[in-house]
Amino acid sequence: MMHASYARAGAPAQVEVRPSRFDERRAIGDILMRSEIFGRADAECVDAMFLETWQSPPREDHYRWLSCWRDGRMIGFACYGPESLTDRTWDLFWICVVPEARGKGAGRALMVAVESQVRQAGGRLMVIYTSSTPKYAPARRLYERAGFVCVAVVPDYYAEGDDLNIYWKRL
Amino acid sequence: MMHASYARAGAPAQVEVRPSRFDERRAIGDILMRSEIFGRADAECVDAMFLETWQSPPREDHYRWLSCWRDGRMIGFACYGPESLTDRTWDLFWICVVPEARGKGAGRALMVAVESQVRQAGGRLMVIYTSSTPKYAPARRLYERAGFVCVAVVPDYYAEGDDLNIYWKRL
Repeated sequence: MMHASYARAGAPAQVEVRPSRFDERRAIGDILMRSEIFGRADAECVDAMFLETWQSPPREDHYRWLSCWRDGRMIGFACYGPESLTDRTWDLFWICVVPEARGKGAGRALMVAVESQVRQAGGRLMVIYTSSTPKYAPARRLYERAGFVCVAVVPDYYAEGDDLNIYWKRL
Repeated sequence: MMHASYARAGAPAQVEVRPSRFDERRAIGDILMRSEIFGRADAECVDAMFLETWQSPPREDHYRWLSCWRDGRMIGFACYGPESLTDRTWDLFWICVVPEARGKGAGRALMVAVESQVRQAGGRLMVIYTSSTPKYAPARRLYERAGFVCVAVVPDYYAEGDDLNIYWKRL
């Protein structure tokens, strides 16, 4: 398993990304609820995915989890995995950093770690499904800076006026 | 639950669509394996979804299944359900009719039944994810005839040269 750390020039403290552990379940829920982006329904969905990862027999297409730490505190996480019935297409399902830690390289460190892991696993393509609303603009900028391109839009997918944006990157 | 039947003008025998039962599990697998479109990986994915539907505690976002019958024989099925974390967006996950029964209204009857059920459940939008390859051209025509529009394309999603086409219909 990966154990990598990433330092950002001028950042006061080093950000560390490592595989999540089962006892981080509550911390992941807290990060979502404190995110000012995601809500209870999202947190419940993530929790169900988290439980499934640990409670089901390991499968090739199981979810992978990374936690991001700084100064001994968990400040973010990411969840990714292969897309069923595709040839080496992977999906970044969730990425979230607590508000007070944003703009300091944690999101970028998670993106770099996910992409590195997916490349090592033989990934060919990565996709990210996200919302078109202003609330998600920082997330979209993060994806674009990591080289993802919005290749498709599904109008009103999440709700009226809230489109699905599909970001895409060839690895 | 629904119990509807659909007759097509000039069709020799009436096609009947009704909710699938657990003991139709093997018949659904056989339909996929005989489809000349889907393969073992698809059949295994469908079987896992089928088992999950019956073995998990009922949830709002559980999968729904419809079987299509003619002359006492099951000739097709459909699987659909709401998309998590969306406002009343539903997904037609699978639809399949055995080769010898195609072009005789079974696919159309399944589409009509799914759409009717989704409307009754309060659906606002329906999406269908499918492949861009020639093998899926009859399926794409079926969706288009039912009023679905291809609103988005994700290049090389399934494999190199095999795009994801997203069909879309407002209910």
